[in-house]
Amino acid sequence: MPEYSVVGRRLPRVDALEKVTGAAKYGADVHPPGMLYGKIVRSEYPHAKILHIDTTEAELLPGVRAIITQADVESGRKVFASDKVLYSGEPIAAVAATDSDIADEAAGLIKIEYERLPVVQNVMEAIQPTAPRLHSDETKDGPSRRGIRNRLKQLSLDESEGSSEEIRTLETELETLEEDVYYNISAETHTEIGDVEKGFAESDIVVENTYTIPRVHQTYMEPHVSVASADSSGKVTVWASTQGPFAIRSGIAGTLGIPLGKINVIPTIMGGGFGGRFGVTMTHVPAVLLSQKTGRPVRVQVTRKEEFLDGRPAPGCVIKMKTGATKSGGILACQALAFWDSGAVSGASIGSTIRVRGVYKIPNLKVDAYGVYTNKSGTTAYRAPGAPQAIFAAESQLDEIARRIGMDPVEFRLKNMREEGDMIPGGSQEPVIGYKETLKAVADAAGWWNRDKSHNQGWGVAVGDWTNGCGPGGVYVSIHEDGSARIFHGSMDITGTDTAITQIVAEILTLPYERVTITRGDTDSAPYATGSGGSVVTFTMGNTAKLAAEDTRRRILELAAERLNTEIDNFELRDGKIFVNGADSPKSISLGELAAFSLNTRGGPIVGKGSFAQQSSTPALAAQIAKVEVDAETGRIKVLKLVSSQDVGFAINPMAVEGQIEGGTVQGYAWAIMEEMQYDQNGNVNPGLVDYRVPTSADLPTVESVIVEVPAPNGPFGAKGVGEPPITPTLATMSNAVVDAVGVRVNDLPIKPEKIVAALHNNGN
Amino acid sequence: MPEYSVVGRRLPRVDALEKVTGAAKYGADVHPPGMLYGKIVRSEYPHAKILHIDTTEAELLPGVRAIITQADVESGRKVFASDKVLYSGEPIAAVAATDSDIADEAAGLIKIEYERLPVVQNVMEAIQPTAPRLHSDETKDGPSRRGIRNRLKQLSLDESEGSSEEIRTLETELETLEEDVYYNISAETHTEIGDVEKGFAESDIVVENTYTIPRVHQTYMEPHVSVASADSSGKVTVWASTQGPFAIRSGIAGTLGIPLGKINVIPTIMGGGFGGRFGVTMTHVPAVLLSQKTGRPVRVQVTRKEEFLDGRPAPGCVIKMKTGATKSGGILACQALAFWDSGAVSGASIGSTIRVRGVYKIPNLKVDAYGVYTNKSGTTAYRAPGAPQAIFAAESQLDEIARRIGMDPVEFRLKNMREEGDMIPGGSQEPVIGYKETLKAVADAAGWWNRDKSHNQGWGVAVGDWTNGCGPGGVYVSIHEDGSARIFHGSMDITGTDTAITQIVAEILTLPYERVTITRGDTDSAPYATGSGGSVVTFTMGNTAKLAAEDTRRRILELAAERLNTEIDNFELRDGKIFVNGADSPKSISLGELAAFSLNTRGGPIVGKGSFAQQSSTPALAAQIAKVEVDAETGRIKVLKLVSSQDVGFAINPMAVEGQIEGGTVQGYAWAIMEEMQYDQNGNVNPGLVDYRVPTSADLPTVESVIVEVPAPNGPFGAKGVGEPPITPTLATMSNAVVDAVGVRVNDLPIKPEKIVAALHNNGN
Repeated sequence: MPEYSVVGRRLPRVDALEKVTGAAKYGADVHPPGMLYGKIVRSEYPHAKILHIDTTEAELLPGVRAIITQADVESGRKVFASDKVLYSGEPIAAVAATDSDIADEAAGLIKIEYERLPVVQNVMEAIQPTAPRLHSDETKDGPSRRGIRNRLKQLSLDESEGSSEEIRTLETELETLEEDVYYNISAETHTEIGDVEKGFAESDIVVENTYTIPRVHQTYMEPHVSVASADSSGKVTVWASTQGPFAIRSGIAGTLGIPLGKINVIPTIMGGGFGGRFGVTMTHVPAVLLSQKTGRPVRVQVTRKEEFLDGRPAPGCVIKMKTGATKSGGILACQALAFWDSGAVSGASIGSTIRVRGVYKIPNLKVDAYGVYTNKSGTTAYRAPGAPQAIFAAESQLDEIARRIGMDPVEFRLKNMREEGDMIPGGSQEPVIGYKETLKAVADAAGWWNRDKSHNQGWGVAVGDWTNGCGPGGVYVSIHEDGSARIFHGSMDITGTDTAITQIVAEILTLPYERVTITRGDTDSAPYATGSGGSVVTFTMGNTAKLAAEDTRRRILELAAERLNTEIDNFELRDGKIFVNGADSPKSISLGELAAFSLNTRGGPIVGKGSFAQQSSTPALAAQIAKVEVDAETGRIKVLKLVSSQDVGFAINPMAVEGQIEGGTVQGYAWAIMEEMQYDQNGNVNPGLVDYRVPTSADLPTVESVIVEVPAPNGPFGAKGVGEPPITPTLATMSNAVVDAVGVRVNDLPIKPEKIVAALHNNGN
Repeated sequence: MPEYSVVGRRLPRVDALEKVTGAAKYGADVHPPGMLYGKIVRSEYPHAKILHIDTTEAELLPGVRAIITQADVESGRKVFASDKVLYSGEPIAAVAATDSDIADEAAGLIKIEYERLPVVQNVMEAIQPTAPRLHSDETKDGPSRRGIRNRLKQLSLDESEGSSEEIRTLETELETLEEDVYYNISAETHTEIGDVEKGFAESDIVVENTYTIPRVHQTYMEPHVSVASADSSGKVTVWASTQGPFAIRSGIAGTLGIPLGKINVIPTIMGGGFGGRFGVTMTHVPAVLLSQKTGRPVRVQVTRKEEFLDGRPAPGCVIKMKTGATKSGGILACQALAFWDSGAVSGASIGSTIRVRGVYKIPNLKVDAYGVYTNKSGTTAYRAPGAPQAIFAAESQLDEIARRIGMDPVEFRLKNMREEGDMIPGGSQEPVIGYKETLKAVADAAGWWNRDKSHNQGWGVAVGDWTNGCGPGGVYVSIHEDGSARIFHGSMDITGTDTAITQIVAEILTLPYERVTITRGDTDSAPYATGSGGSVVTFTMGNTAKLAAEDTRRRILELAAERLNTEIDNFELRDGKIFVNGADSPKSISLGELAAFSLNTRGGPIVGKGSFAQQSSTPALAAQIAKVEVDAETGRIKVLKLVSSQDVGFAINPMAVEGQIEGGTVQGYAWAIMEEMQYDQNGNVNPGLVDYRVPTSADLPTVESVIVEVPAPNGPFGAKGVGEPPITPTLATMSNAVVDAVGVRVNDLPIKPEKIVAALHNNGN
């Protein structure tokens, strides 16, 4: 591996000081002069017709400056419910007032008459013909009907003998197959490789189960907030806590019919996002509408309760899954049917059901996934969206198979793992990958091969993969007259990415880390940048920053040649200076000198540009091993060991990478055993952090991180995205460890103590 | 001339709406939370030793948060006077308090003990041996001593016969030539071409006179103001009303020893500058020091009185000038000796004395210029710095010669004007120029050739030249997903330059003007940009923006080729769309479509870059004709006609260009007949707009603008800088018209009524 000076080092984050000193400005710190306070008025019922909205009394309250409903949305695009509400907490109106108490009071004075409608909260009920319909009465074929229809389509093109008889049989079957029609479907995806029926038939062992994963909230520290200010020229400025300022800009533009040049989104420092802060969220559009109506800046900031009622959490789902293998441990077939709880709006993550394929060679695969409307808020991304759910099902099944055939679960996985050049089921060929290295690393680090356990103790292993995304972005790099460098870009720092980008630029320009500063612009100033999510930033923006730094270096060398009137090849950039190659004397020109010189050259100031987008993405694996002890009486799980390895390609900042591994692992851990959004029939959800339990540091085990580095050929210095993989295997890791400890498998997450106790009772313990 | 769609049109300024609606944010509108108010404590005397500074009482005043003096400046660089003051109003200390009244009161409570010193305010006194010394006792040779010394130096290398005798004679002469040693000299420049003595000897007519031009203030509408905020990491943010944010950054960095990466200068909209808002001014450093000491943002905003006491106005000067010509109107020699009133700090504009050469062929030229220290505030640039003063002297002399030889003053100038390829005395060869075209244009437009006049009426003509500067800058252009374009840059809009840049980019991208937005960044975000002054912005930044737009167009065409998988040459950008060349069907791709497509290409988002600096600069001429009527009893001048022509190369926005011509002409007009900073022996100056009279619209004549377009080969679309030329001839134009009306020439500006009356009395009227 080459010797690097800045990348690969454990350097403090560029934003560390401002964050620990409280200097960092979050959304709630934005307070333009004359700002009003906005409040959203929300549905009290999970499903009801709106008969009448009466704002008379609220309008009379002193200090109220505006009340808006859907009637105020000139574009006609839906912002507020007007005729029907589909979930408790759905926005119906918004108020702007001179202080937040008046806004709250005014919201309470708005009288809404409803006619209640029947409610459906459970996906398996929602697909039934008896369920109330949320959007239309349309039905979708289930996998069996789909199969028949596809066969019929084939046969209609086939003129061979016997086909007409098969057609008749199938048509009859279709008529009688009543149960396989689904209602309230928001979306669907289907993948079929090989012949799963044949695969199962050839299998020595087939496991089949249904897995239920609850809806969980991203529980970022900062609830949604935005401040909007519309000026007399029609220009709208939006301060937004967001993962993607450019997505906010186009989202608001599209919803309200404003040209892109008339919106400036100023991103504030994010108090966490985890996928829940992408695109337009509940505060942006109401803030803009209220500001347009009042001519004053308006801040809309939601409470934690509103976050739980109307946030966009991760979807829960029900996955029916079946896996077949040979006695000798070869996986032959895998089939999954998933129902994702979309809530009231079109669903997120259903495409991730394919992730049941894991990183294994699976000759026969069939995946059918449906998004299902229910009377709940919509959902969105949460760290590796959909992958923890799908991988929980798949890795539970593999664990079960390994148990049943008596094969070591690590060995079983290693035996089936894909290698470079193997076909990814439903995908392309594997590039250079580090699947086996990563699993072996965690096994070695955890002491798997010589594992011991006492009574009620157990070991669980699982792996989870994620493909880091790639997105478009531009980065500018310039050199100051004192020889220091500056980076300017527009992507949000979600996980220390600004630090990684700074290290990359410092490395290329051979400058000390401290001599490079990084600044984020708003959408009026910064070059376009992809949203910060999908483990995309260090990969894509890192590559872009590298291009910008290389462009800068090129200009520096040109300047040196122009300055000394010689060839560009005669120079070398080293230690932040230009040295004349091969010269005996260590004569050098400083970057500051060249920057000052550049101002009097035809080529002008040193401003490097990088612009970059599409690249084949690079998969990365996380592998985890947990050792737990289960109290058979209380069902309480104690984690004795939790080791998490990850192929990061190249750790640009090992400290930051470990932070990601630890963060993802504990989020997975909490999903496995604690977190769950629980809805009652009125659509009320456990509305805050007292009832919705997220782990505190006291609840958490120590996570040991193991960094594996199999360089990505297309990543900056070989780096892969690191944010998402570590959450993907933990649900299964924990479940598999519990099975190993007490012999019961809880497929309905979270694995709460009462469920373990109940399962032990059912098992006769 | 080619057909253009956007450049060359009278389009409204991009900032028109925000300015007329009051939405524009000036320095005084900046108010970060927790802001303190700063006040500068100033010297009461024009020249004194500081014996003691007592801040005890001020510190005890409730609400005072910090008091600083020179002792607080860790870098040791001079910010405050500590042992001696050199002018009334010189900063000695600064106070920060919770409101501005407390700051004022605290400033009054700081007790300063002085020992007064003798004062010198007049340059002709300051150069005398009897004058008090401001900085040192050093002397400088005057032109005669200099001449002798230069000859002695030559002779010492000359071994020919007779030289030793000449040496002895010259040495004796040097000893006796006492009067030709100057004191209090801040700087000097000397130019000699040909042999002026010989030129004068060959002349039929020689005119000689002394011209006195007063110190005038730029009287921008917004007094100096800055807000500084130093955070816990040492990062300093400065909101500044400035013509050059990057100069402010390096200025503060240099003065206080802060790395460039630790200072961000956020420029606010400028309430006028005219050269007086370049570089670090009186408010920047005290604001930073007070913020560093208090840990809170501090605003330092000065009063109009402080502006007059401690601003950096245009220097006044005394120019002794002599011009010789033949009877037939050929200029043979020209000599000038100038003393510029530098005030207490090293002087501005003295290099402009060379502008006495005008745009004429002058075979023999000698210019000696000195900056002279006086007990007044320092000086700086004011619209075409130094040129109005020098040109007033030179164009007065030419007028006098024309009168004396009985030649039409326009014809006389046309006869002597340089043409393309002629040598500029003391300079290089003339490029393509439009001197004669411009003078002829004003003569035609004013009706010069058939001019009539009644009693006490007169016509005056003068020309003034300026060379627009060139400076370094970078510009970025990007295309939004809706096909609109955005410009991002860092130069200040001083005179509608943002509008011109927007027109240039729209023209290149074939977009309507309204589809292009322009944003200015701070020094942390924007590419380096030269300060806005020297008529440099449209020329330099316009060229840079053109390069950026062309880079953008190149990327657009590449994308079209990538999209349709064909050659780049097959496309044409027209009407904001890409058309396939030569295709029968008018098939096109929109820029929005390509911008969206770019996000999924390897090359990434459409971000064009332009970077540009050094270029030979391009001279431009303004020519003016005034017709006046002078009331012989009151001395009042009534302007009957004032026509101003200017070679602008190409008027990117004729409306904006006319605004510049009118603005410059009326500033020159006011300098000629009204404006003057008057100091008493205590160093008090006429301290506000009641005592320092600037013209109101009621005082002003209508200025007729005549645009002449002789394209600059290196300007964007042929444009030249237009801001400065129109102020340069007006002082002489007015004076020459008065002479033509009533036969008296007032060489001591301004031409106040009482001076005309006195001169008429002296003439025996």
